Amino acid sequence: MEKIKVAVNGYGTIGKRVVDAVRLQKDMELVGITGHSYNFRMEVAHDCKIPIYIFDGENDFEENGIKPAGSADDLFDEADIIVDCTPKKIGKENKEKYYIPKKKKAIFQGGEKPDIAQISFVAQCNYKEAIGKDYVRVVSCNTTGLCRALKVVDDLYGLGLVHATMIRRGADPGDIFHGPINAIVPVLELPSHHGPDVQTVLHNVNIFTTAMSVSTTLMHCHSIHAECKKTPNVKDLIEKLKHTTRIRMVRTSERVRSTAEIMELARDLSRSRGDMPELCLWEEAIGVSGKNLFYLQAVHQESIVVPENIDAIRAMMGFKDAEKSIEMTNKALNVK
Amino acid sequence: MEKIKVAVNGYGTIGKRVVDAVRLQKDMELVGITGHSYNFRMEVAHDCKIPIYIFDGENDFEENGIKPAGSADDLFDEADIIVDCTPKKIGKENKEKYYIPKKKKAIFQGGEKPDIAQISFVAQCNYKEAIGKDYVRVVSCNTTGLCRALKVVDDLYGLGLVHATMIRRGADPGDIFHGPINAIVPVLELPSHHGPDVQTVLHNVNIFTTAMSVSTTLMHCHSIHAECKKTPNVKDLIEKLKHTTRIRMVRTSERVRSTAEIMELARDLSRSRGDMPELCLWEEAIGVSGKNLFYLQAVHQESIVVPENIDAIRAMMGFKDAEKSIEMTNKALNVK
Repeated sequence: MEKIKVAVNGYGTIGKRVVDAVRLQKDMELVGITGHSYNFRMEVAHDCKIPIYIFDGENDFEENGIKPAGSADDLFDEADIIVDCTPKKIGKENKEKYYIPKKKKAIFQGGEKPDIAQISFVAQCNYKEAIGKDYVRVVSCNTTGLCRALKVVDDLYGLGLVHATMIRRGADPGDIFHGPINAIVPVLELPSHHGPDVQTVLHNVNIFTTAMSVSTTLMHCHSIHAECKKTPNVKDLIEKLKHTTRIRMVRTSERVRSTAEIMELARDLSRSRGDMPELCLWEEAIGVSGKNLFYLQAVHQESIVVPENIDAIRAMMGFKDAEKSIEMTNKALNVK
Repeated sequence: MEKIKVAVNGYGTIGKRVVDAVRLQKDMELVGITGHSYNFRMEVAHDCKIPIYIFDGENDFEENGIKPAGSADDLFDEADIIVDCTPKKIGKENKEKYYIPKKKKAIFQGGEKPDIAQISFVAQCNYKEAIGKDYVRVVSCNTTGLCRALKVVDDLYGLGLVHATMIRRGADPGDIFHGPINAIVPVLELPSHHGPDVQTVLHNVNIFTTAMSVSTTLMHCHSIHAECKKTPNVKDLIEKLKHTTRIRMVRTSERVRSTAEIMELARDLSRSRGDMPELCLWEEAIGVSGKNLFYLQAVHQESIVVPENIDAIRAMMGFKDAEKSIEMTNKALNVK
């Protein structure tokens, strides 16, 4: 079987993780990554023998001992598919400048607007919609987290109105530019963009979202209230969630009481970079009042979308079996 | 008119603020406070000529140049009413040890269980219930904040199910003992205690609450979803809230985008200790979807209950006019 040739454009928080994940798939081959200028991430990539392709103009790779493998144009020409992990709005520019003229399939991240792609994607929700597509958008970390659990609840009980409050990390662990340091910063637009974003994947869900940023770097948390059509049962739901891919149940009775302890668990599991690509739900924080379901979950913003990018590659290249793709991805990444 | 003689037992975050507030009321006289041992708070109180009464046993006041005014027993005997601002569970001990035997009226704070008092209290919700009572419990900061705004919504539209997510400050500004430093810590019991606590004041409201602590010291935030019986109107609601006592509307268009900026505003207003006893709601963060109302609000945990304590004193001493008491308190404290 010929391997899928993947290029990754953008080597930040998501890009570097997608690169590692691609390299772990038996049916994929990483052609290379793009680089603008020398930095510690490029040094690590070079140490890992990852070919670095550069954009036109000045760069400082050679003077730092790194010989570029070629130009970004070369990279894109060589690839079957490009995973665009550039900062938001740059993906749109890249699509017009490179991917359309070169007739290359491309995956975009959740920072881009939905209309950049033919569909928005969460593997366990709508894999089939991505089969054979040229442009797919993997939704953001928060939206991915919302969709994974809401799909389970919708399948079991049928969803009425959903209200989710996102308590967002203020910055990523390696970030020095953002705040807040000591404040809660609400998103002062209602609904926040997450609600409409969920609907790009779960098309019939009536969801309203509010969000705020807080002084933490580890994970996002979500507080969710979902009206259900049938009366939910906590025990049954926990059982179902336990057997759902990419969802991990955590328990305060095991002293996993906070996002800090979830991240410590990921490190103890020897996960690469201490990542937790599974959506985590606390067993003790699932409650029912009449037909209303309430739950709290945590999202590792740096890694939750990584398996989605891998499955999107397969679907777009024509691999039709969603379950099989998810299984392959999970196994390679040691994800539940 | 004879002034109400008030003793304050416990001189921490709430106690020291209640002391200041009592001293500003024309119809009240502060008899004194209790002290266990010398510290910077006692030094400041002494500088302000506040009489300090001590408990039996060793103490280090005299060696630090402070002559106690008498014993705690003397203080309680002298007072008409005692505001108990001791840490949670101590109020219950004090009630049995001092207030019942001495037949003294007493106010407790929200850390105590509801059954410590005859009623739980938020002035603008149920002042009348406190008139002439011997034991009243001023509810916690979060519950006070929830009640103030929900009362308005209930009066206007009628409340169905309410779900509130509390994003709580991890510690008070002067605190060195608590966390989290860099994590989100959910309350892993559903509902959190806040929901049942609201019902001790707004008896007929069907409310479910979830909560988590975050790394900030300034204020709590609440994300609220209230099903209404009539369709809410954002403009009308804002207008009504603007004219509701102890509620302050803030706006991102004035660059009040976060709890940090609300606290900065309070400092700019020359509020004592930079306090903001008003519940703050963001105008831009009120949204409606069908009969569902969504809003975000901020609660200054250190000061929101201070005016409630003052009004509770008056009600318990037989002052029957709720509006008049609230007006007197507000004027003395420069509260809206």
